[in-house]
Amino acid sequence: MDIQSYLSQKKSIVDKTLYKLVPSAKMFPTSVHEAMRYSLFAGGKRVRPILAIAAAEALGSKTSGLLPLAGSLELIHTYSLIHDDLPAMDDDDLRRGRPTCHKVYGEAVAILAGDGLLNMAFEVLSDPGGTEAVSAKRLLAIIKEISTASGVFGMVGGQVVDMESEGREVDLPTLEYIHTHKTGALIRASVRVGAIYAKAGKRQLSALTRYGELAGLAFQIADDILDLTGTQEELGKDAGSDLKKDKKTFPSFYGLAESRRRAYEVAAKAIDSLQGFGRAADPLRELAEYIVNRVN
Amino acid sequence: MDIQSYLSQKKSIVDKTLYKLVPSAKMFPTSVHEAMRYSLFAGGKRVRPILAIAAAEALGSKTSGLLPLAGSLELIHTYSLIHDDLPAMDDDDLRRGRPTCHKVYGEAVAILAGDGLLNMAFEVLSDPGGTEAVSAKRLLAIIKEISTASGVFGMVGGQVVDMESEGREVDLPTLEYIHTHKTGALIRASVRVGAIYAKAGKRQLSALTRYGELAGLAFQIADDILDLTGTQEELGKDAGSDLKKDKKTFPSFYGLAESRRRAYEVAAKAIDSLQGFGRAADPLRELAEYIVNRVN
Repeated sequence: MDIQSYLSQKKSIVDKTLYKLVPSAKMFPTSVHEAMRYSLFAGGKRVRPILAIAAAEALGSKTSGLLPLAGSLELIHTYSLIHDDLPAMDDDDLRRGRPTCHKVYGEAVAILAGDGLLNMAFEVLSDPGGTEAVSAKRLLAIIKEISTASGVFGMVGGQVVDMESEGREVDLPTLEYIHTHKTGALIRASVRVGAIYAKAGKRQLSALTRYGELAGLAFQIADDILDLTGTQEELGKDAGSDLKKDKKTFPSFYGLAESRRRAYEVAAKAIDSLQGFGRAADPLRELAEYIVNRVN
Repeated sequence: MDIQSYLSQKKSIVDKTLYKLVPSAKMFPTSVHEAMRYSLFAGGKRVRPILAIAAAEALGSKTSGLLPLAGSLELIHTYSLIHDDLPAMDDDDLRRGRPTCHKVYGEAVAILAGDGLLNMAFEVLSDPGGTEAVSAKRLLAIIKEISTASGVFGMVGGQVVDMESEGREVDLPTLEYIHTHKTGALIRASVRVGAIYAKAGKRQLSALTRYGELAGLAFQIADDILDLTGTQEELGKDAGSDLKKDKKTFPSFYGLAESRRRAYEVAAKAIDSLQGFGRAADPLRELAEYIVNRVN
């Protein structure tokens, strides 16, 4: 299969869903709606929604009813980027090659745009509309999955420890905590959302969960490597920002070559966890490789 | 009935629920858990959870299964206070007689404590635990209700317009937009959550919705009056802060005496909307009066 055309086809479907969820019609109050759209349509790769879709496909499921749920993963991801970029947090000026949300709309509107996107995710999840493709019980399980991954036992916790670790000696367990929570939790949840939607059995869910955890880890190692080796143009943000902020990363523990080796090893393990699945899981397998080979 | 003893009894039940939802045991990362608890247990009156409970009682329903859902309304309310107080927003130093969350824990942790509380509300709502007191379908309706009231079409929208109106000429429709969204939306939702939980019929739900809208309006007029007439000791925050910030309020449009008259008139209308309900709705009736008579 051609992963590039798979990605671009799915990205376009996800983008269409997001345009429906956050329409461009003038809405009051305009500033916060514009700020939400500015960050949501900044050229994201839509990795999380695509992982959810690919996980459902791996189980042979149709995915039209999954699209709004997958879209809500991107709303949550975007909320976290806006808040993480704030001056009080990582204080980043550039994101995906453009000024960050607070640089354009001011801090107050940026905080509220993040809050708006987070709330909107749950508006969508509690009332995804259209067909009754997914039972109320399963929707609740999906909401639980996403809110836990997004909250204080997931991304929020990871961001707290990340910030509190800046400029300090960080040991490997702490680095692992940051990565599994800040990035890993939502990637794991994305795969599980697709699996729960597609009525995964217990063993299927556990295999896909393991895939999600390994994919999240591979994603983060690759991110750390890219921060060191990518150019500003490729990354759409300052290159080497981890070094500048004195942030510990995989390469700072293991060196660049060993980090690369581990990224490929983890991706291979992710693929191994799909042994019980047939050809329908090929997109997930290709995605694991894409995650470590990407240049941004 | 004695509303004071009703309020203190229900407040203690709500507080117990909140202690269970956000336990005091040391949780990692400690800073954000402490910040969440600091703001959640700062002596709030628990008006929103109590309104939900009283609405369910008005329909003759037991309320033990409602408690975690009612508690989540307070998690949302607390998140909104923490974010509204931030330097980039209303820049308030005092809240309920104590330094605001960001004054104690710093801006970054305060933003993340707000995010953590907001996410936690949906963790609780999607998995309230215990008995199967409420069907999955009804839980989804409640999540939709709360997320919409909290998001860009509710509180977030109200806060945006409130901030963008500071120091500008504000007309009455704008003031009304701010009030119905910033405060009114979650109070209305609180009453509706109790009603939906208690399986309100269509006409009952519509009467209780009207009650919630009027109670929210009465609450806000009373708040505006208190900001002018209360002392810092009574309010637990700077008195006269609306004037200092050049914020338009009900008294600045109508004067103090006429605002008081209107507050009582609106509370009376709220009580009128409960005509189809028996004695079980007495707490709601008393709450409408309490809302305009309170001193903080």
